[in-house]
Amino acid sequence: MFYHDRELQYKVRVDKPNPVFARMLQQAIGGIEGEIRVCLQYLFQGWGARGPVKYRNMLLETGTEEIAHIEMLATAVALNLEGAPMSVQDEFAKDKVVGAVLGGMDPRHVLSSGLAAMAVDANGVPFNGSWVVGSGNLAADMHANVMAEATGRVLATRLWEATDDPGMKDMLAFLIARDTMHQNQWMAVLEEIGGLGAHPIPNSFPQSEENQNFNYSFVSTYIGNDTTEGGRWTSGPSIDGKGEFRVEKAAPLGGIPVLAPPDPRGHAQTEQMTTMGAMTGTLSDKVKGKMSGSGTGGHGPLGGRDAE
Amino acid sequence: MFYHDRELQYKVRVDKPNPVFARMLQQAIGGIEGEIRVCLQYLFQGWGARGPVKYRNMLLETGTEEIAHIEMLATAVALNLEGAPMSVQDEFAKDKVVGAVLGGMDPRHVLSSGLAAMAVDANGVPFNGSWVVGSGNLAADMHANVMAEATGRVLATRLWEATDDPGMKDMLAFLIARDTMHQNQWMAVLEEIGGLGAHPIPNSFPQSEENQNFNYSFVSTYIGNDTTEGGRWTSGPSIDGKGEFRVEKAAPLGGIPVLAPPDPRGHAQTEQMTTMGAMTGTLSDKVKGKMSGSGTGGHGPLGGRDAE
Amino acid sequence: MFYHDRELQYKVRVDKPNPVFARMLQQAIGGIEGEIRVCLQYLFQGWGARGPVKYRNMLLETGTEEIAHIEMLATAVALNLEGAPMSVQDEFAKDKVVGAVLGGMDPRHVLSSGLAAMAVDANGVPFNGSWVVGSGNLAADMHANVMAEATGRVLATRLWEATDDPGMKDMLAFLIARDTMHQNQWMAVLEEIGGLGAHPIPNSFPQSEENQNFNYSFVSTYIGNDTTEGGRWTSGPSIDGKGEFRVEKAAPLGGIPVLAPPDPRGHAQTEQMTTMGAMTGTLSDKVKGKMSGSGTGGHGPLGGRDAE
Amino acid sequence: MFYHDRELQYKVRVDKPNPVFARMLQQAIGGIEGEIRVCLQYLFQGWGARGPVKYRNMLLETGTEEIAHIEMLATAVALNLEGAPMSVQDEFAKDKVVGAVLGGMDPRHVLSSGLAAMAVDANGVPFNGSWVVGSGNLAADMHANVMAEATGRVLATRLWEATDDPGMKDMLAFLIARDTMHQNQWMAVLEEIGGLGAHPIPNSFPQSEENQNFNYSFVSTYIGNDTTEGGRWTSGPSIDGKGEFRVEKAAPLGGIPVLAPPDPRGHAQTEQMTTMGAMTGTLSDKVKGKMSGSGTGGHGPLGGRDAE
Amino acid sequence: MFYHDRELQYKVRVDKPNPVFARMLQQAIGGIEGEIRVCLQYLFQGWGARGPVKYRNMLLETGTEEIAHIEMLATAVALNLEGAPMSVQDEFAKDKVVGAVLGGMDPRHVLSSGLAAMAVDANGVPFNGSWVVGSGNLAADMHANVMAEATGRVLATRLWEATDDPGMKDMLAFLIARDTMHQNQWMAVLEEIGGLGAHPIPNSFPQSEENQNFNYSFVSTYIGNDTTEGGRWTSGPSIDGKGEFRVEKAAPLGGIPVLAPPDPRGHAQTEQMTTMGAMTGTLSDKVKGKMSGSGTGGHGPLGGRDAE
Amino acid sequence: MFYHDRELQYKVRVDKPNPVFARMLQQAIGGIEGEIRVCLQYLFQGWGARGPVKYRNMLLETGTEEIAHIEMLATAVALNLEGAPMSVQDEFAKDKVVGAVLGGMDPRHVLSSGLAAMAVDANGVPFNGSWVVGSGNLAADMHANVMAEATGRVLATRLWEATDDPGMKDMLAFLIARDTMHQNQWMAVLEEIGGLGAHPIPNSFPQSEENQNFNYSFVSTYIGNDTTEGGRWTSGPSIDGKGEFRVEKAAPLGGIPVLAPPDPRGHAQTEQMTTMGAMTGTLSDKVKGKMSGSGTGGHGPLGGRDAE
Repeated sequence: MFYHDRELQYKVRVDKPNPVFARMLQQAIGGIEGEIRVCLQYLFQGWGARGPVKYRNMLLETGTEEIAHIEMLATAVALNLEGAPMSVQDEFAKDKVVGAVLGGMDPRHVLSSGLAAMAVDANGVPFNGSWVVGSGNLAADMHANVMAEATGRVLATRLWEATDDPGMKDMLAFLIARDTMHQNQWMAVLEEIGGLGAHPIPNSFPQSEENQNFNYSFVSTYIGNDTTEGGRWTSGPSIDGKGEFRVEKAAPLGGIPVLAPPDPRGHAQTEQMTTMGAMTGTLSDKVKGKMSGSGTGGHGPLGGRDAE
Repeated sequence: MFYHDRELQYKVRVDKPNPVFARMLQQAIGGIEGEIRVCLQYLFQGWGARGPVKYRNMLLETGTEEIAHIEMLATAVALNLEGAPMSVQDEFAKDKVVGAVLGGMDPRHVLSSGLAAMAVDANGVPFNGSWVVGSGNLAADMHANVMAEATGRVLATRLWEATDDPGMKDMLAFLIARDTMHQNQWMAVLEEIGGLGAHPIPNSFPQSEENQNFNYSFVSTYIGNDTTEGGRWTSGPSIDGKGEFRVEKAAPLGGIPVLAPPDPRGHAQTEQMTTMGAMTGTLSDKVKGKMSGSGTGGHGPLGGRDAE
Repeated sequence: MFYHDRELQYKVRVDKPNPVFARMLQQAIGGIEGEIRVCLQYLFQGWGARGPVKYRNMLLETGTEEIAHIEMLATAVALNLEGAPMSVQDEFAKDKVVGAVLGGMDPRHVLSSGLAAMAVDANGVPFNGSWVVGSGNLAADMHANVMAEATGRVLATRLWEATDDPGMKDMLAFLIARDTMHQNQWMAVLEEIGGLGAHPIPNSFPQSEENQNFNYSFVSTYIGNDTTEGGRWTSGPSIDGKGEFRVEKAAPLGGIPVLAPPDPRGHAQTEQMTTMGAMTGTLSDKVKGKMSGSGTGGHGPLGGRDAE
Repeated sequence: MFYHDRELQYKVRVDKPNPVFARMLQQAIGGIEGEIRVCLQYLFQGWGARGPVKYRNMLLETGTEEIAHIEMLATAVALNLEGAPMSVQDEFAKDKVVGAVLGGMDPRHVLSSGLAAMAVDANGVPFNGSWVVGSGNLAADMHANVMAEATGRVLATRLWEATDDPGMKDMLAFLIARDTMHQNQWMAVLEEIGGLGAHPIPNSFPQSEENQNFNYSFVSTYIGNDTTEGGRWTSGPSIDGKGEFRVEKAAPLGGIPVLAPPDPRGHAQTEQMTTMGAMTGTLSDKVKGKMSGSGTGGHGPLGGRDAE
Repeated sequence: MFYHDRELQYKVRVDKPNPVFARMLQQAIGGIEGEIRVCLQYLFQGWGARGPVKYRNMLLETGTEEIAHIEMLATAVALNLEGAPMSVQDEFAKDKVVGAVLGGMDPRHVLSSGLAAMAVDANGVPFNGSWVVGSGNLAADMHANVMAEATGRVLATRLWEATDDPGMKDMLAFLIARDTMHQNQWMAVLEEIGGLGAHPIPNSFPQSEENQNFNYSFVSTYIGNDTTEGGRWTSGPSIDGKGEFRVEKAAPLGGIPVLAPPDPRGHAQTEQMTTMGAMTGTLSDKVKGKMSGSGTGGHGPLGGRDAE
Repeated sequence: MFYHDRELQYKVRVDKPNPVFARMLQQAIGGIEGEIRVCLQYLFQGWGARGPVKYRNMLLETGTEEIAHIEMLATAVALNLEGAPMSVQDEFAKDKVVGAVLGGMDPRHVLSSGLAAMAVDANGVPFNGSWVVGSGNLAADMHANVMAEATGRVLATRLWEATDDPGMKDMLAFLIARDTMHQNQWMAVLEEIGGLGAHPIPNSFPQSEENQNFNYSFVSTYIGNDTTEGGRWTSGPSIDGKGEFRVEKAAPLGGIPVLAPPDPRGHAQTEQMTTMGAMTGTLSDKVKGKMSGSGTGGHGPLGGRDAE
C-alpha cells in the first residue's frame, strides 16, 4: 500500500509563468514518454512480477518515486498557468505576445481544468493505458524500461533547452538526473540476470525450434544492385554470441496465397462468388505450383469433429 | 519508394482452421507488440533519420521486411477463419465446440471484415499510431526497437505454444527467427555507436548540468525499516561507468507547493476564492518556511511586459 | 511525494482461480468506473487545487489510498490467472469448461502480460486519460467524485454477485465499504462548502447574466399531445431554491441559420458555389424573416482591422 | 422516434467571426464536458431505463433537447470560421493578428471540414463513446448527469468570459440557463427517489455484507505526525445518516502477496523460473507469516474438476 | 512480400522551411484522410480478398504505391521542420513571426520526434486502425476507397492552397494527380463488376427479404407543413433501377418499448424495482395497446432449455 | 431543433433473448459501420452545409431518422440481455450453453450498463468521433455516405444471417430496406450535381495544375516481369471522361532525400552529429547527382527574415 507526504520530492519554482511551456510540460506528464506511463509501467510490472521477489520490490520502489515526479510536473504546469490569458477577443488587437501565447497554449488549460495539469500530452491527447508495458518477461520489460527512460530523458533535455526560467531548469536538471539513474538501474537488472547471455529474449524458448536459416541473417529488401553498406549487423559473431551475422537478399519463399471464395452468408458481392479462374483466365503453371493456403479451405473448425 | 511481389516471404499454411487462433494472431498484427507497429516504427525512424546515412538505409530495409510479416499474418488470419461459424443461434444448442469458438472468436471477423484480418489487436482494439516511436535519438530508438522485438518474440513464442497446427508452428518458427535477428541487429547498432559509453541517453547533454546528487542514487521509497535487498543497482560502479551506485532513503526536499487562488474568470466556486489561511486556520511555522511556488503568483506571462 | 509498503492494504485471497473473473476484475482496474481513474482523478484534483488547502490535502490522502486498491485488484487478477489455459487447440475437444474459459477470458492475459493485470478494462480497451476529471471548480469535481464512487460501487457489487469465491467476496466487501465512505466523503465536502446553496455550479457566475426565461423550465420535446407526467422537476421551487420549476413545450426561437457559400480555396464542388437561392427557388417570406447568421458573413477575423 | 425543425432552438449570431473562438467552442461540442456526451448519455440512459417509465420519458425529452444544442454550437463554429485564413505562408510576414489566429485555430477546420464543426474537442481529439455513462442505477446516473451539467456549465461560463462578441455571449447565456435547469432537474430526481436516504449507491446492496470496519472511516495516508485537518468527513454522523465518521491512520492489513512462478509456456526469462527464495535469501519470519495469495497457486480453473 | 528503393517516387523539395506547414502535412500522413490509412486499407483489402484474383493483385499494387506517398510526405515534414524554433522563452519578446510559428506548430515535432514526421494527424491525434476499412464486399470497399481518395484529394488541394513554396506545390500537384487516377481506378472496378446494377450493396442479399414498404421511400422527419423540396431522391426511378422513389412523412410504427424491471443482482436502486405502473399512475389505453418488447421478458437465454 | 415520439419507428421484438447477439448488435450501434456514425455524419454535414440549402435540409431529415435507428437497436440490445447470466462461477460446471453465452457476451453489459446498450462496438471499443466525416465537399461527402450505408447494409445482412429470432429478423429487414434507400439517396445527389462529370473530386480544382504525367496512369509496383492483368483501369477512357488510362511501371523520380544533421538542442546522440559522409564513406557519384532536400537546409523559417 501507499503513503504520501505533503512536501514535494524536489523544489518546483517558476520565476516567470509561461502557459506555452505549461503545454509542453504536459508531454512529460501524459505523453508516451511521460511520467504516468513509467509510474504505471513499473507498478504493474511489480504487481505482476513472478519469480525472484527482489525485482518486484525494486519495481514498486521506483514506481512509487515516479508518482512524485508526476506531482512535481503537475505543480509546474499549474504555476506556469498562473495569469494565463483567458479571453480570445480583446487581447488580439493589443499585444503580440499574448497572441503568441494564445496560439501556443492548450485551450483546455483554460476551458477544462481551470489552470491546472491534465492527464494528457502536449497536444491534449489523453494518456493511453496501452503504453503500460508489462510482458511478464523480465528482460523484455527491462528493455521497455530503458527505452522509456531514454526517451523520457531526451524529452527532459529538450524541455530544458526550451526554457530559460531558472526554477524550471533546476527542476528539469533533477528529473534528468533521475532518468540517468533509472536507465542505469534497468541495465543493472539486465546485467544481473545474464546480460547478453540472456538474449535472444525470451531465452526460455529453445532456439532449436526457431528457423535456423533466418535467425542471424540481415535480409536486404533494397532493390538496388549496389551492395548494402556494411555494419556491425552484417558480418561477424552475433551480439548474443549464438550465431554469425550474414546478409541475404530478400527473396520470396512462400508462394502465392490462395483464399477460399467468400462464405455466402457473409454477403460479398455476387461478382466475387466466382471461382478464381473464371475471371482471371488460366493460371500459369508457375503460379499453380506455388499455391498454398488452408489444406481444407472452406471447411473450418468444425470439420472432422464428430458429435460428442 | 516500394515494390511488392505476389509471393509471400515465407509459406503460410493452415492445416486446421481455428477462428479463436485467428483472433489471437491479431495481436501480432495490430497489437502494441505487433508487426504494424514495428513496420511503421522502422520506416518513420528511417524517413526522419539525421546523421550517418547508413542507419537510414538499414532501417528502411528492415521496415520493408516487416510489411511482408504483416502480409503473412493477415493471410494466416484469413485462412484460420475459413469455415467459421456465422450464426449465434442454432449452433448453441448443438455443439459445445462451436459454442467455445463463438465465445472465443472476434465477432467482427464475421460482421466487419468478412473473414479477413483487420488492423486491430486480439481484443479488437484498433492499432494506435502513438505506438510508433521515433525520437530522433538513435540510441533511444534502438532501445525502443529492441524492446519491440523482445515483446514481439515473447508474443510469437506464446502463439507457438497456443497452437498445435503444424503450418502455424512452422510460420511462427520463421517469425521467431526473424525476431532473434532483429534483436541482435538493434543491439549491433548500439555497439557500433558507442555501446555502454553512449549512456546515459542522450549522451549529447552535458552531464554537468544534471543534478549531481541524484544521478546515481537508488531512491528507496519503501517505508519499512528492514533494508532494501541489495542488487546490482545499489552499489558498485554504475553501468555507464560514469558514477557509483548508492542507496538513498526517499525524503522530501521540495517543500509544500502553493498555488495562487483561482482566477475569477475561471469560475471556481465562490467558496474557493478565500485566502488560503481563512479556512484552514493559522499555518504552522513549519509549513510557512517551506512554502514555494511561483515568485510572481497570480501575474503570469503578461506581467512586466511593456508595450512593444 | 510518496512511499509504499510491501504489504497490501487488505488481504487478497483467491481460493479457486478463474480467468474469466480475472477479465471482469479488469473493469475495476482500467475501466471508466475503475481505480486508476479515481486514483489519478483525486491526485490531479489535489495537485491543481486552488483555494483552501485542506481540500488539497484530503484529495491527496484519498488519491493515495486508491493506488493501494489498484494494487489489490492487480494482485487479484494475477491470482485468478494462475493455471489459465494457454492453448486453443487441444483443449477444445476435451473439456467444455475450458472451452468456456477460453471464450470468456482476455487472450491478452496470456499473450501480452504473461498472466498479470494490465491497464485496460474488461474488454481490453486501454485506460484513457480523458476520464480524469478535474475542472478547477470544487463543487463540480465533488459531483464527479460522487459519480465515480457510485458507479464504482455499483460495479463492485456486480463483481461480488458474479463470484462465489470466498476470498474474492471478502476483498470486494472491503472495497465496497471504501466506496461507501468515499461517497459520503465527497458529499461531506459539498455540505461544507454550501450544500444546495452552492448551486447552480459554478455559483460564482452571476445568475443575472443567464437567460432568465429558460433557467428553471423543463423543456418538453415530446411531440405528443398527452401531457408529460409530472415530476419533482415540473413544478414547485427549484432544488437550489433560486427559481420555480415550470414546463414549457419545445419551440424554435432561433430562426433558420444561414452560412456563407464555400470559400473557393476550400475546394468544395463547383455545384456548391451557387447562391443559396439559385438552386432552391424563391425563399418564402417566412424563411426570409427568420434568417440569421454572421453579420459580416464571408469576412471574418481580419475584417475591419487596420494595420497596426 | 425523432423529428426536427429547420429553425434553431435559440438564435445564433456571430458579429465578428473568430476562428480561435471556433476552436474553443469545439470543447462544448465534442469534448468530455460537451453536448454530444450529454445528448447520447441521456438518450442511452432512457433507452435502457428499467423501472418506472416516467424517468425514461423524461430522459428522452432532455436528450432530444441536447441535439438542438449541438446544432446551435455547430452553427456557431461555422459562423466563427467564415473568412478564416487558409494559407500559412504569405500572411505571416504581414499581420500579427492573422499569425495569432493561425497559431490558435484548429488547422483541421481548414483542412478537413471546410470551415465547419467536427465531432472533436478543442484540441481536435475525437469524441469518445466511453464518456457516455449509463449504469442502469438511476441514482448513480443522476450524479453522472449532475456532474456533466456542472462541468458543462463551468465550461460555458468560461467561454462566456473568453468572448466579447454580443451574439456569442447571448447564445452562451441561453446555454448556461439550460445547464442551470438541468442540474436542478437531475437533483430533483435524486430528491424524488429518496434523497440522502438513497445512499450509499446502490442502496439495493445489503450494507451488512460490506466490511463494517471501513465503511465510515477516513483513511489517512498522510505520513506526517501533525494531524490531518478536521473536515465534515472526519467526525459526526455520515451524510447518509447510516454511520459515524472517524479517522483511521492507514495501515496494511493484507500481508505480502505471493504469486506462483511463471508458467513455462508463457516464456518468461529462464532467470525468473527460480523459487522465490533462491535468489532472495531466506525470508524473514515476519514476511512468512504474512504471505497470502492463491490457496492453490499454480493450479487454476481446471484444478479439481473431474471429467463431465 | 516487399522491396524498397532508396530514391523517392517523386521529388520532394522545400525552398523555405515552415514548421506550421509541417504540422498541416501531418494530416496527410496520419489523419483519417491520409496516406497511412489508404496504404493499410488497400493492403488489408488485398490480403483478405476472396474471389477473382485480379482485384487482390491490383489492390496490393496500389497499396504499395501509397507507402511511397507516406515516405514523400514524411520527408516533406522533416524538411519543413529544419531550423524550427526550439525554445519558448526568449523568442517571444523579439519576433512576432516566431511567435506565430510557435503557436501554430506541433510542439511534439520538437519534443518527441526531434524534427521529424510522426504517425499522427495535424492535431497530434494518433493514426487509428479503425479507419482501415475492408468489409469483404468488393463494392462496399470500392466506395470506401473512392471516398478515401476524394477526401484525400480535397485535403491535398487545400494544402496546395495553403502554401506558396514552389517545391511543396510541385509535390502536391503530383499527389493530387495520383488521387485523380485512384478515384478513377476504384470507379473502374465498380463499373467492371456491374456498375449501378450491383446496387444495392451487397447485391447478394435477396431484396425480397427486405421490407418492401421502406426500401425506396424518402422518410421526411421535418416537422413543418411546408413540403420538403423536391430532389432526385423524392420521385422517379431509383438510381439502382430496382424501385421508384417516393416521399413518406415519418410516423411511428413500433409502439412503445417495454423493458423488464432490473435484475436484482445488477443492483439498480431499490426505487427502480417497482412495477412500471406503480409509480406512473394508470397507463392510458392508448399506451397499453402499443406495448411491445420481449415475449418472454425476464427469462432470457436459459429459458426453456433443458439439461443436455 | 428536435422532437421525439415515445413510440419506435418500427417494431422491436425479441422472441428469445440472446446476450451473444446483443453483443453483435453493438456493432450496428457504436461500430464504424453503425448508426451513431451515420447519425452524426449526416447531421454534421447538414449543420456545416454551404451552398444550396436543399442538401442541408435533406441531410438533417435523414440524420434525424438515424437517431430512431439507434433507438431501435439500443432497445433490441436491452431485450436480448434480459435474463443474461450474471455470475461466472456456478454456471460453468452446470451448463455448456451458459458457458458459451458467458464467453461470447460482453461482460460490460453486466458490469457497466446493467443489461443495456452502450456507445461501443461489438468488442467494447468506444464510438470514435473521428469516424464522422464531413469534408465540406458535397461529392466527397456523398461517397462517404454511400460507403457508410454500403458497409452498414453488409453488416445488417450478416446480423440477419446470424440470428433465427423472427422478431430480430423482422427488425433487420426493415433496417436493410432503409439502407437500400439511403444508398440510392446519396447516389441521387451525386447524379443531381453532375454525376461522373463531377469527377475528379473536388472538381473546383483546376486539373491543369495537377501533374499531367500521372493523373491517368495505373502505376504498377509489381516487381515481376509477367504483365499485370488488364482491367477496366488499365486502358480505355478514364471513368471521368477526362483522360485515357495507361499502365506505367513504378520507377523512382525523386532522388535520395537528404536531411540536415540534428539540431544540437534536440539532443540526438553525439554519434549522429557527424556529417553524412564521415561515417558512410565517399558517396557515389550516382547518389550525389540525385540528392534533394531543403534548399536552405538547417536554416528554416527565420532565414531571410529581417527585423520588423
